[in-house]
Amino acid sequence: MRRVNGQPADEIGLNDRGFQFGDGVFRTLRCEGGGLRLWARQYAKLARDCAALGIVAPDEATLLDDIAALEPNDAAVKIVVTRGDSPRGYGVPADCAPNRVVQVAPLPPRPPAEGVRVRWCEMRAGWQPRLAGIKHLNRLENVLARAEWQDAALFEGLLLDRDGHVLEGTMSNVLALSGRVLFTPRLDGGGVAGVMREAMLDLAPQLGIAVRETPMTPAALLAADRLWLCNSLIGLVAVRELAGQHWGAHALDAGVAAALAQLEKDETKWL
Amino acid sequence: MRRVNGQPADEIGLNDRGFQFGDGVFRTLRCEGGGLRLWARQYAKLARDCAALGIVAPDEATLLDDIAALEPNDAAVKIVVTRGDSPRGYGVPADCAPNRVVQVAPLPPRPPAEGVRVRWCEMRAGWQPRLAGIKHLNRLENVLARAEWQDAALFEGLLLDRDGHVLEGTMSNVLALSGRVLFTPRLDGGGVAGVMREAMLDLAPQLGIAVRETPMTPAALLAADRLWLCNSLIGLVAVRELAGQHWGAHALDAGVAAALAQLEKDETKWL
Repeated sequence: MRRVNGQPADEIGLNDRGFQFGDGVFRTLRCEGGGLRLWARQYAKLARDCAALGIVAPDEATLLDDIAALEPNDAAVKIVVTRGDSPRGYGVPADCAPNRVVQVAPLPPRPPAEGVRVRWCEMRAGWQPRLAGIKHLNRLENVLARAEWQDAALFEGLLLDRDGHVLEGTMSNVLALSGRVLFTPRLDGGGVAGVMREAMLDLAPQLGIAVRETPMTPAALLAADRLWLCNSLIGLVAVRELAGQHWGAHALDAGVAAALAQLEKDETKWL
Repeated sequence: MRRVNGQPADEIGLNDRGFQFGDGVFRTLRCEGGGLRLWARQYAKLARDCAALGIVAPDEATLLDDIAALEPNDAAVKIVVTRGDSPRGYGVPADCAPNRVVQVAPLPPRPPAEGVRVRWCEMRAGWQPRLAGIKHLNRLENVLARAEWQDAALFEGLLLDRDGHVLEGTMSNVLALSGRVLFTPRLDGGGVAGVMREAMLDLAPQLGIAVRETPMTPAALLAADRLWLCNSLIGLVAVRELAGQHWGAHALDAGVAAALAQLEKDETKWL
């Protein structure tokens, strides 16, 4: 169920810089009925993230061949691209060639339709504009934030940044609807600018919803009419409780869900 | 020349969380004539770093067995400990057991006795107090900072933090002597608190040198009587040029070098 550089494999060399330094990027996406959801956006994001780190991205056709060889039907597809192999040390040898890993796993269950409960994380998200927005392999912050709670009834934890603004969830982006304006944290100091977030920001204007990327306070989040989390695997998920604040159904829920489902269908790449 | 969990191996499983997320720590140390320099400090630091991330550190005896099996004489020994294997996702399964990797490589050449030339990096070091000081596997910042220059005559690049204070080099800690006071950046927001730095801070008072860990401006660094870089592989290295500022020999050079050499001898673990 895995391929490394186009060959079946379950291991990666110890010289791989992904293992040594987290020197690479990754993507996780939904395959449904043999169709890769939002594939063009996923590949474009992978290529952008590689470029931001100075890594040569694999061809789109090469990755599609890798995925097709795993014959996914309904699956979570994960793609990892690292800078390649090198001996010890941060310097990059001239002949360093990227390694690519493609694997499939079962899709996680869809969150409940009535929405999910989330919490504030105690840990603050870090600040590093050079890496902000990139889905790179340096994910210790996410690991430590996710380790803050064990209660299975809590779906996600939200992180504030150094300045006390809301940044993101441990595995999701945050969207807040107030009136007909969709607010989402600006990700210039940290966080991952996910593909589902991007899709939602593109979709909103078609629904008569304005979009604002801006620093957001926790109070602004709690005062929103509707709070959503999103990522490529879970899609768009409503929050029903955060820190004692509860949300019921919203008049725009059905319209937004239908428009997003249509977009995902329109932007599916069939293997 | 490598062992994974006590067995000869050149690869690690794709489920390893070091590869997936950089979810682990590492150490690099000098072995000279079959003696591990500053071993007790190295192991203590590894154990502290593991504890800071909630990873169970391997026993000291287990690691020593791993190293001895590689029969190093003069070598750079690298130890990696990751949280272990898990499927996709940041959550840690209850049965997650650490993976350990031990490998040996040739020692890098000693820097020239007259000192080295260094530069300022353009990239700012990130801020994340939860990870500050820990030698973890999330090292993309170091990789990107090191990629800023190709000139082989430049030995190291120094990073400022978000507030414009000096933090560290891409692979070394910074020590600045002014009069009889040794200054070094406080590492509460980022950086790696290295073992050689620790050894120097312990040694200084014996030489009649006071120690101050404090935020340091670039100007304070440039005004120092003596600037040193240090890490466990290169030891203590004098800076002879930074941004047009030049340093010649210092009256304390020989005394400091002799005291450090003695400490390294006294604190060697023979295999």
